[in-house]
Amino acid sequence: MQGVDPAWLPREVFRPIGTRRTLLRGSGPLVDTVHTEVAEACEQFGGSVSRDASPGPYDPHDLLLELTGDDGSEGFTFLREEGRTKVTSSGPSGLLYGLFHVVRLGEDAFLGEARRETHGPALGLRMLDHWDNVAVHPVMGQVERGYAGGSLFWEDGRARGDLERVRAYGRLLASCGINALAVNNVNVHETEAHLLTDRIGEVALLAEAFRAYGIRTHLSVSFAAPVVLGGLATADPLDEGVRAWWAEATGRVYEAIPDFGGYVVKADSEGQPGPFAYGRTHADGANMLAAALEPYGGTVHWRAFVYDHRQDWRDRTTDRARAAYDHFVPLDGEFAANAVLQVKHGPMDFQVREPVSPLIGAMPGTRLAVEVQATQEYTGQQRHVCWLGPMWSEVLRFRPSDAEEGPSVGELARGGLVAVSNVGDDPFWTGHPLAQANLYTFGRLAWQPDADPLEILDEWIRLAFPDAETRLVEGLHAVLDGSWSTYEKYTAPLGVGFMVQPGHHYGPSVDGYEYSPWGTYHFADRDGIGVDRSRGTGTGFAGQYGKGWAEVYESVESCPDELLLFFHHVPYRHVLRGGKTVIQHIYDTHFEGVAEVEKARAVWDSLAGLVDAERYVRVVERYEEQVRSAREWRDQVNSYFLRKSGVGDAHGRRIH
Amino acid sequence: MQGVDPAWLPREVFRPIGTRRTLLRGSGPLVDTVHTEVAEACEQFGGSVSRDASPGPYDPHDLLLELTGDDGSEGFTFLREEGRTKVTSSGPSGLLYGLFHVVRLGEDAFLGEARRETHGPALGLRMLDHWDNVAVHPVMGQVERGYAGGSLFWEDGRARGDLERVRAYGRLLASCGINALAVNNVNVHETEAHLLTDRIGEVALLAEAFRAYGIRTHLSVSFAAPVVLGGLATADPLDEGVRAWWAEATGRVYEAIPDFGGYVVKADSEGQPGPFAYGRTHADGANMLAAALEPYGGTVHWRAFVYDHRQDWRDRTTDRARAAYDHFVPLDGEFAANAVLQVKHGPMDFQVREPVSPLIGAMPGTRLAVEVQATQEYTGQQRHVCWLGPMWSEVLRFRPSDAEEGPSVGELARGGLVAVSNVGDDPFWTGHPLAQANLYTFGRLAWQPDADPLEILDEWIRLAFPDAETRLVEGLHAVLDGSWSTYEKYTAPLGVGFMVQPGHHYGPSVDGYEYSPWGTYHFADRDGIGVDRSRGTGTGFAGQYGKGWAEVYESVESCPDELLLFFHHVPYRHVLRGGKTVIQHIYDTHFEGVAEVEKARAVWDSLAGLVDAERYVRVVERYEEQVRSAREWRDQVNSYFLRKSGVGDAHGRRIH
Repeated sequence: MQGVDPAWLPREVFRPIGTRRTLLRGSGPLVDTVHTEVAEACEQFGGSVSRDASPGPYDPHDLLLELTGDDGSEGFTFLREEGRTKVTSSGPSGLLYGLFHVVRLGEDAFLGEARRETHGPALGLRMLDHWDNVAVHPVMGQVERGYAGGSLFWEDGRARGDLERVRAYGRLLASCGINALAVNNVNVHETEAHLLTDRIGEVALLAEAFRAYGIRTHLSVSFAAPVVLGGLATADPLDEGVRAWWAEATGRVYEAIPDFGGYVVKADSEGQPGPFAYGRTHADGANMLAAALEPYGGTVHWRAFVYDHRQDWRDRTTDRARAAYDHFVPLDGEFAANAVLQVKHGPMDFQVREPVSPLIGAMPGTRLAVEVQATQEYTGQQRHVCWLGPMWSEVLRFRPSDAEEGPSVGELARGGLVAVSNVGDDPFWTGHPLAQANLYTFGRLAWQPDADPLEILDEWIRLAFPDAETRLVEGLHAVLDGSWSTYEKYTAPLGVGFMVQPGHHYGPSVDGYEYSPWGTYHFADRDGIGVDRSRGTGTGFAGQYGKGWAEVYESVESCPDELLLFFHHVPYRHVLRGGKTVIQHIYDTHFEGVAEVEKARAVWDSLAGLVDAERYVRVVERYEEQVRSAREWRDQVNSYFLRKSGVGDAHGRRIH
Repeated sequence: MQGVDPAWLPREVFRPIGTRRTLLRGSGPLVDTVHTEVAEACEQFGGSVSRDASPGPYDPHDLLLELTGDDGSEGFTFLREEGRTKVTSSGPSGLLYGLFHVVRLGEDAFLGEARRETHGPALGLRMLDHWDNVAVHPVMGQVERGYAGGSLFWEDGRARGDLERVRAYGRLLASCGINALAVNNVNVHETEAHLLTDRIGEVALLAEAFRAYGIRTHLSVSFAAPVVLGGLATADPLDEGVRAWWAEATGRVYEAIPDFGGYVVKADSEGQPGPFAYGRTHADGANMLAAALEPYGGTVHWRAFVYDHRQDWRDRTTDRARAAYDHFVPLDGEFAANAVLQVKHGPMDFQVREPVSPLIGAMPGTRLAVEVQATQEYTGQQRHVCWLGPMWSEVLRFRPSDAEEGPSVGELARGGLVAVSNVGDDPFWTGHPLAQANLYTFGRLAWQPDADPLEILDEWIRLAFPDAETRLVEGLHAVLDGSWSTYEKYTAPLGVGFMVQPGHHYGPSVDGYEYSPWGTYHFADRDGIGVDRSRGTGTGFAGQYGKGWAEVYESVESCPDELLLFFHHVPYRHVLRGGKTVIQHIYDTHFEGVAEVEKARAVWDSLAGLVDAERYVRVVERYEEQVRSAREWRDQVNSYFLRKSGVGDAHGRRIH
């Protein structure tokens, strides 16, 4: 496509396949997709591809791609024998993923002997939620929390005509293992509500484009749809008329999109309608939609992001962090088999540092999906480099029942892993060209939650910058690896969260949410800071964890430093496990964070000439802003706490 | 008009005239207006009016209204002799104002003998600036800082058709003495720029409606108009092409509107274009427009609101309060005779408490107009009762050269008094029905700056609530008188200003502007608060005043309590002249302020049945919000300072 970045699939990565002879066996739409991929590579690089749909003797070839069945498997076998490479799968998607595996391996795919590997995704659902509005929202714009231009799907109230870009997007997603996508914002406004009914045709066009890459399309719907669209007097999930309305509406959806994935619902959350209005539980609500979807194999994703967003800041007994657990754990076991409870990874809202949500691990009788945020709402909004792989990996490896034993979050997420997409119609897809790494890393972690994120990072670098010289590879690695930690250093300290400008959430405002109804407080006074969430003296949130973690978080002594202010209110002179006082830690990390950004910028500057000019300049511009913003964070946070605590910096640096 | 409040001109106030015989002498459009007024009153109340344009013996009459010349006088003579009332003026506007004087007097106008009074406005220009946008601004809406619905003039990019409402508005304004009006926002955006040229016809229609009430129409223009509209390469005020462009454009304006008042310009201010871009002074800029207007008798109002709105909060040497003086005093004597420098009454921006701008009194060689803000941007946004009469009166009576001697602001404002209008298409005109009192008070103070505002308040009550029983009159007086002081008590303390939510400026946010580029800081730390603007140790702003005030403001001991934090940074335990510590003053005033609002609401509640239901309910609703908001202010401000200072309330009241 003209002017659109190839991201991690530039032509060069297809050279190893494109220079060889490939034999493709099997039939069906996804096999056709595989064929197109290989044929285009061969056209560019001189190789060949032949198709042989019927069994029989093999033509001479270097690579065999063979579909051996149609059981829906997403896994594949990779074999290397007799100088040939062989990829087989018993499902069409598996063959497609096998192809991209070969692409990732590059020349290595055609080296060595007697290799036999089986691959398959650990999680059956690897999904992106697009918070894209159809009609431009007066406050939130075309894409809510979007930092990459407009929507790929919608523009000014209508579907975009350009399916070429959507297909290219589907291809990128399939290549890193993503297999599901919701095409509209979980905040379903009036225009968007109609996608479910009279505007389902627009969704069907998107679904067709994604289908070619094994991606099922999902739709965010309004719980009030029977009222808003159907003209019913109620949306009560136990009302027979309501249930009939959903059954019929869902039937029509499947007429238009036979492989439709299902619904995504944000109910009773931040003003969205929900079952509470009818005295029903969230299980009642989710199960009603599950029942409508069940005949067609669809799933309802029911978000657990339910809390009081009109809290009185004077009320110190209410703790937003408790809300999801308090609302949903009592309902464990009540959700239908095709209802997935979608839980944000932390108890608050995608902060740079949060503990893992205690809900995960506390609902053994419920299919849970874990939601992370690729779009960098609270982590620099794709103007700052903040590679989130290490954060997501930490979450996925966390063992809720105990630090050492029991299943990890990656294992508990039976309903899948979901990311809020960071993609828009920006030529680089993600605004910041380096933010592509977040999308890629998400897909690969969803496939293998216990993967080493640094290996994924290097894999992304190899793909996105093929044939790069060592200096470039090392430079890219240097500016991305550690960027999350850097971002954490210059923003809200020690897990306390927020301190952002209200509304748009970009840039510092230490007290920005302190006297607000949003439940996001730090309680800083002249003596100390932090939220006491212990069982003993605080809100009791720490007690929502299994015994092991509950004990760790309960005490100031054992609580990890990076979460100290999330769980405890401590004096500024409290000494951290790391040996520094809280106040000195604040000063030091904020000076360090800025220094690290300045250093990363210098590294990037040194890469001039090694990356294409457009990408280079875009990143230079973003670093300019990141440095400015990081200094602003440093100075506001340090000044705030110097003014409040009266404790000077031990190193006498300038604080304003 | 259907559904539109008659404000301070309900039918009843015309009864004394309408029941009598009036003789009207003179001719011309304004005499026609007077005739219409009297004739309508007579139609309602049974009296009579006769016109006699030629000299000769008088018909029998109770009231004679006589135009004796055409010298443009706005003054009039009121006589009572031989059982008759006689009003004469040598100018048409004077006769109109004389009529409304009789209306205000009511039956008293027809009592007594041997009275002879002459009346005339102290200020020649009594003006309203409407910050109305033609096209709805994405952030600021139809009316910037408008709290009374949409614009009376513009709707969704076009002129409204409804001139009836505009005429009714002109009538209200004339009745309180206003004689000039700017029809569009000083921030001139693209659509609005065209009013000057191809859309001048729309302005002409408004001017025609206002002309019938002696009001001249003014237009806010973009300094960049020659570039934006004229396609010139520059807007340099010394460029001959630019001067010619303005001369021609202005000629066309006067073709469309022969009595056009002139231009209003916000230049080099908050992003608006101005002469700085061309290395020219503001006198150069203003004089260029003055030259274009001069042949037609027009005036340019050049706003002195010039400051660095991109200040670095870390920079403690820059003081926004100094900016207007620093920019303009060096230019004293350089402005053309028909250029008026329009100065906000305080050095900052319409805060509930500011010192008087030191610019006023420091430019003897320049015609100054003083600008106040009827629209309650920082004083409750017409959801709170905040009658501004006492504040404006304080400003107008202030003697910049010395406390006791020298001319007052009211005397120095040779260029007139200007208010940002608080009116929109709301049925009550001003959103809050009681905010009508601000508009009325402004007009009357512009006429007579040394008037007692409480007398104006009672005059407004008598007019707006004719025949009211004592309980109602006293109740209205009680809820309005003192409401400014009440508002001051529960918001930012001791002249420090701001502490509002950024952007929309409604509701508290103590640190909302503390780390911003807007130059509006309080510098609160754990030890104290306030801005040191002394010459000795601070920004030197205090030295911009004449010797007397400079000395008063310079020292903590002599600075008036209510301005202490504007001029000085003091410890929380500093004892005010009033005997309390600063911190205890903060607590006490915030508790008192809320208690006063609650008491005022109770007074209003007790008036049920005495005012019409619609007005009563509207005010009840607004009080509901005012009480909520005042409590929010109290609790946020008190909590903020308790957390920061650590000093408890001496009376042990609950602070969160």
